[in-house]
Amino acid sequence: MRIVIINPNTTTAMTAVIDAAARGVARPDAEIVSVTSTMGPASIESHYDEAMAVPGIVDAIEDNPGADGYLLACFGDPGLDAAREVAGAPVLGIAEAAMHLAAPLGRGFSVVTTASRTIGRAADLVEHYGFTRSCRGIHACEIPVLELESNPEAVGIITKMCAEALAADGSDAVVLGCAGMAGFVGDIGAAVGAPVIDGVAAGVGMLTAMAAMGLRTGTRTGEFAPPPPKPYTGLLTPFARPQD
Amino acid sequence: MRIVIINPNTTTAMTAVIDAAARGVARPDAEIVSVTSTMGPASIESHYDEAMAVPGIVDAIEDNPGADGYLLACFGDPGLDAAREVAGAPVLGIAEAAMHLAAPLGRGFSVVTTASRTIGRAADLVEHYGFTRSCRGIHACEIPVLELESNPEAVGIITKMCAEALAADGSDAVVLGCAGMAGFVGDIGAAVGAPVIDGVAAGVGMLTAMAAMGLRTGTRTGEFAPPPPKPYTGLLTPFARPQD
Amino acid sequence: MRIVIINPNTTTAMTAVIDAAARGVARPDAEIVSVTSTMGPASIESHYDEAMAVPGIVDAIEDNPGADGYLLACFGDPGLDAAREVAGAPVLGIAEAAMHLAAPLGRGFSVVTTASRTIGRAADLVEHYGFTRSCRGIHACEIPVLELESNPEAVGIITKMCAEALAADGSDAVVLGCAGMAGFVGDIGAAVGAPVIDGVAAGVGMLTAMAAMGLRTGTRTGEFAPPPPKPYTGLLTPFARPQD
Amino acid sequence: MRIVIINPNTTTAMTAVIDAAARGVARPDAEIVSVTSTMGPASIESHYDEAMAVPGIVDAIEDNPGADGYLLACFGDPGLDAAREVAGAPVLGIAEAAMHLAAPLGRGFSVVTTASRTIGRAADLVEHYGFTRSCRGIHACEIPVLELESNPEAVGIITKMCAEALAADGSDAVVLGCAGMAGFVGDIGAAVGAPVIDGVAAGVGMLTAMAAMGLRTGTRTGEFAPPPPKPYTGLLTPFARPQD
Amino acid sequence: MRIVIINPNTTTAMTAVIDAAARGVARPDAEIVSVTSTMGPASIESHYDEAMAVPGIVDAIEDNPGADGYLLACFGDPGLDAAREVAGAPVLGIAEAAMHLAAPLGRGFSVVTTASRTIGRAADLVEHYGFTRSCRGIHACEIPVLELESNPEAVGIITKMCAEALAADGSDAVVLGCAGMAGFVGDIGAAVGAPVIDGVAAGVGMLTAMAAMGLRTGTRTGEFAPPPPKPYTGLLTPFARPQD
Amino acid sequence: MRIVIINPNTTTAMTAVIDAAARGVARPDAEIVSVTSTMGPASIESHYDEAMAVPGIVDAIEDNPGADGYLLACFGDPGLDAAREVAGAPVLGIAEAAMHLAAPLGRGFSVVTTASRTIGRAADLVEHYGFTRSCRGIHACEIPVLELESNPEAVGIITKMCAEALAADGSDAVVLGCAGMAGFVGDIGAAVGAPVIDGVAAGVGMLTAMAAMGLRTGTRTGEFAPPPPKPYTGLLTPFARPQD
Repeated sequence: MRIVIINPNTTTAMTAVIDAAARGVARPDAEIVSVTSTMGPASIESHYDEAMAVPGIVDAIEDNPGADGYLLACFGDPGLDAAREVAGAPVLGIAEAAMHLAAPLGRGFSVVTTASRTIGRAADLVEHYGFTRSCRGIHACEIPVLELESNPEAVGIITKMCAEALAADGSDAVVLGCAGMAGFVGDIGAAVGAPVIDGVAAGVGMLTAMAAMGLRTGTRTGEFAPPPPKPYTGLLTPFARPQD
Repeated sequence: MRIVIINPNTTTAMTAVIDAAARGVARPDAEIVSVTSTMGPASIESHYDEAMAVPGIVDAIEDNPGADGYLLACFGDPGLDAAREVAGAPVLGIAEAAMHLAAPLGRGFSVVTTASRTIGRAADLVEHYGFTRSCRGIHACEIPVLELESNPEAVGIITKMCAEALAADGSDAVVLGCAGMAGFVGDIGAAVGAPVIDGVAAGVGMLTAMAAMGLRTGTRTGEFAPPPPKPYTGLLTPFARPQD
Repeated sequence: MRIVIINPNTTTAMTAVIDAAARGVARPDAEIVSVTSTMGPASIESHYDEAMAVPGIVDAIEDNPGADGYLLACFGDPGLDAAREVAGAPVLGIAEAAMHLAAPLGRGFSVVTTASRTIGRAADLVEHYGFTRSCRGIHACEIPVLELESNPEAVGIITKMCAEALAADGSDAVVLGCAGMAGFVGDIGAAVGAPVIDGVAAGVGMLTAMAAMGLRTGTRTGEFAPPPPKPYTGLLTPFARPQD
Repeated sequence: MRIVIINPNTTTAMTAVIDAAARGVARPDAEIVSVTSTMGPASIESHYDEAMAVPGIVDAIEDNPGADGYLLACFGDPGLDAAREVAGAPVLGIAEAAMHLAAPLGRGFSVVTTASRTIGRAADLVEHYGFTRSCRGIHACEIPVLELESNPEAVGIITKMCAEALAADGSDAVVLGCAGMAGFVGDIGAAVGAPVIDGVAAGVGMLTAMAAMGLRTGTRTGEFAPPPPKPYTGLLTPFARPQD
Repeated sequence: MRIVIINPNTTTAMTAVIDAAARGVARPDAEIVSVTSTMGPASIESHYDEAMAVPGIVDAIEDNPGADGYLLACFGDPGLDAAREVAGAPVLGIAEAAMHLAAPLGRGFSVVTTASRTIGRAADLVEHYGFTRSCRGIHACEIPVLELESNPEAVGIITKMCAEALAADGSDAVVLGCAGMAGFVGDIGAAVGAPVIDGVAAGVGMLTAMAAMGLRTGTRTGEFAPPPPKPYTGLLTPFARPQD
Repeated sequence: MRIVIINPNTTTAMTAVIDAAARGVARPDAEIVSVTSTMGPASIESHYDEAMAVPGIVDAIEDNPGADGYLLACFGDPGLDAAREVAGAPVLGIAEAAMHLAAPLGRGFSVVTTASRTIGRAADLVEHYGFTRSCRGIHACEIPVLELESNPEAVGIITKMCAEALAADGSDAVVLGCAGMAGFVGDIGAAVGAPVIDGVAAGVGMLTAMAAMGLRTGTRTGEFAPPPPKPYTGLLTPFARPQD
């Protein structure tokens, strides 16, 4: 079983964090392949960055064919539907995976993310995946993504915000809203006394389940079938899908 | 890692089906323990049967302490919240688990269950778990639960209904609405050309993910903390929770 | 016209409170029969207690056949769907009845209940019955159910919480979230200057309306038809439904 | 206890039908007062008619002060919020009352009304009162309101449509969508084998419950307090509310 | 192109404010006709006032036939559906128009209105038009409608409340909840640094768009076709629709 | 007033259709600038195409600064939130604009689009914009986007599907689900006898309204402020936002 994890930004240090989180929960016979996007933004902190991360995601999927599952390791779940069209195996975003695992662990969960400008996107995903009732609040710690590793105070700030969010929202669990926080999950969980869900680990777990069951994205209605080939122009010419 | 699967009805033949489905997807280092309820209905086909299955579920959890996850193998997810209060590890119902895995596999899924009188309960669960948008239809094949094994035509009837449901609902995937159908998932999937999700396998996969992440049900708000001890009377006296 | 009110816990003192509330609103030609469950928990303060109260509820219905309506006098509305299958007349829970009467009395209502761990169950019922827009908040006074009668400060604490809930939620009315509060409705109403709805009285009123109209639970789709008979095992053997 | 029922159209023959339905279910010590609007449309079959019926409704309430409840006997529930502001007791519309009583009688109900152009208004009310999940379909028999009495085939047509609606919608109960159908409830119920809910009887029942409990519309937030007095001009000058 | 704007209250000073707001945004070749209702309340501050404003609205539409669009300049959108039945061109309410323009200008908007007793009506409209997710709060400044012009402190109070609402709700834009505030939009916008949407201007803009596209209210399903003629009685006799 | 319309695919023939539709409804003093994307897919018929169209959209906005509004002329509204971050004026998608104008023209509208695989995206937008209640169905005519112009039977097929959708859905209006259908709106409207809404015209109308009111996208909460500058890598390096 092979799970490919794509870091949709171009920062390899974050890929290392993600890879470690994934390996920490993978089943013994699973192969974890963590790849870094080769184009686009160094971190994803706006709708613009998200949109510009999608070509790199697609590229990474096509460079790593034959996997049993693909995980998009950015909490905005960028390009998820497009990735499903081009991948030959199930694709999950880490926001999606984290919420699916968090919901059954209590009546409600809180999300703690990085920049407040990304709260809107997280709220869209909550609504889209059906977790309106489960998700009781989305909170931003205002630490830039690329400082999560370098700022020694980051884990403390996030832990404090998680504790405050749990209390303010009356939640039973907390979801970490950025792949770059994956390394903090143990420390935060110990401190707040509540389940803390990292989407990278959650995604590996759900894709493992799907793979063991032999499941693939359904293409019956055509929506997630491979995209129809057609001419592409200009800078994006390399992304034209070949005629069969 | 130990996963306890509880067949909430008292029919051991169905426990065997469930156990096989679970072992087929379990990670190599996981221990699967499948237990049959020792009290209550031989099959669950009404709100009444569901309610009467809960004491046996609770009993089975208490008889099997120390697991890393508990799965309730009946599609009505009976007694799920009560089980969460008494178990020392995450608890999932198979309807819940199946829907969480089915949703990311396409835009919509259909459910195919046994008796039409159980459609209402399934609809309640769809709503409760947040899958109103994903679940596009619930269909009954009208085969009694205990005939799923003995009736040689069952798999054919269910397969036909799955194909019809996918077409009628415009779905990308189909969820099997009874633990007793777990053995049919391969045949049906091959026939209908769409992902077919069995809740037993899905539940094992999700509980495995939770266990690998070290997650437990959140008890912060008290809702899922152990139930307060108090006197119990009459037939149910054995179910009084002891004072600490 | 005969209305049977079932106290789903085994505490007869609470049955007396409930009976008085019911008689206070019953029409002159109605017979009120209040019965106490003969098995299960002394009070209901957890999902576990609720589940364990259902056998006693069913037993009480079967011991009192031929009524024109059955009221389950616990705000968690335990076993409501199962009760509908076995009763030969409409069945209401007091949460259900209270909300149906409260909604038309203003734009929004607040609920004041006992233990905070039961808020989640009340929220589920709000959603299930369709009162998401009407119910603006659920508040807990943290008084154990069995102390409602014995604690002389209870009515004062609950009154204060009702007043605070009305103000905080911007509500026009307040629903009492426990059958054990039924005796306080007059005092609280006088103090808070807003409609205060007790579910016991509300349930008697709604069942009276249904009885006068000759209405019974619909069984057309089969969901609420009598449960199919089948073998029961172990402790719950007495609950096997007889073959016709 | 006195319940005032207002026929919002000016057709006294329909008031007689309504009055009979109300008396058929009223408790022995209740006084039923049925009044006919003195201004506006002879029947209500459009948004325009509904709007033009409101002055007459308000007038009827003010002409019949001191009641314990007011029922607006038109299925569009015209002017309900305005009526609540001016009445000194609870006010219900018959659509509202019928839906509150129908919801607990099964998983879903269908509505059978008169003209198809009124379906939209009924759908608005379903949504507004919170019965989106309960109401499974609204069907029109295309019989003009004033022909319900005079057309000997009306009851047969409506009965047939009720049976078809129950089957098509998978409903357990049916709500009659016009006060003018109140006299048919017995015949239809006998024919279709499912609970048939007439809003006039339902409204009398719910108002009786509220009156017995001493409930009034909540005015805490001011929304349903008496309207502020101010100058009125032209044809509607008589409707100016007097300064206190 | 001719747009008729109806002030549903009888205060001509407010019509002047509305007219100026409309002319400020109208396209150069559009004719703006602002009319004052000739009957009913001097201002609209209750459900009662709203209901009593409808005859005057209908009258104004019929007195001004042949327009390309009609705008109802009261934030309760009184009589909107009735107006659509009688008008030969699209009809909008200013709440409706303001919300349609505000939603695309950010993730969420706040509404600032006059009396708190009207918040409920505004909330109903938010729900009815589909802006539950966009509208994050409705706030009242408690200034009577007819004092908006005469009270020199009004604009300051409203500006302060707009700023507070934006902050408290986390909104990106603010909607003015009364036609009488139309003249303040520039001052408030400059002060709060966020888009401020006046429904009069929004309504003129949307009706202009519809008129340029040649659109009319759809009458296919009959709901918005002209109301069926029938006898009218009493004070409202003049409102009987003539037989064709 | 200057409105920039961006055809997000690279097919100039479609830009001409769009430009003509826009000019047909623009106010006399408005400048319409229609531009064709210089990179990406020749037509947009999948989630993949949509994602790959976003860089070209952003590029077109930045190449046309200083406008009073930007319209994205593809019914999937690709990159809308990203475009809002980079544009100095309001941005609308044509699906968004069409639905905002269609909703007030009746109780419900139907959408007729091109390929059935795009129905899912349209359904997401319906949900996201709040038109769940208004939109009654989405139908695909299965004509490839680039054949809309060249296929002489296209307008007839689409007209037939519009008529069928209106009848099947019980709708009052129909929305055309592709910018390439903009030229057909007159013919279809004449044939089906119901309002037909083209998103290009609708978008020009709504942006004109916003421009006349001096409105811009709100940036208060930061979500739609300009994206934070940061390094971009590889093929997408030109899309790095400059440091100020």
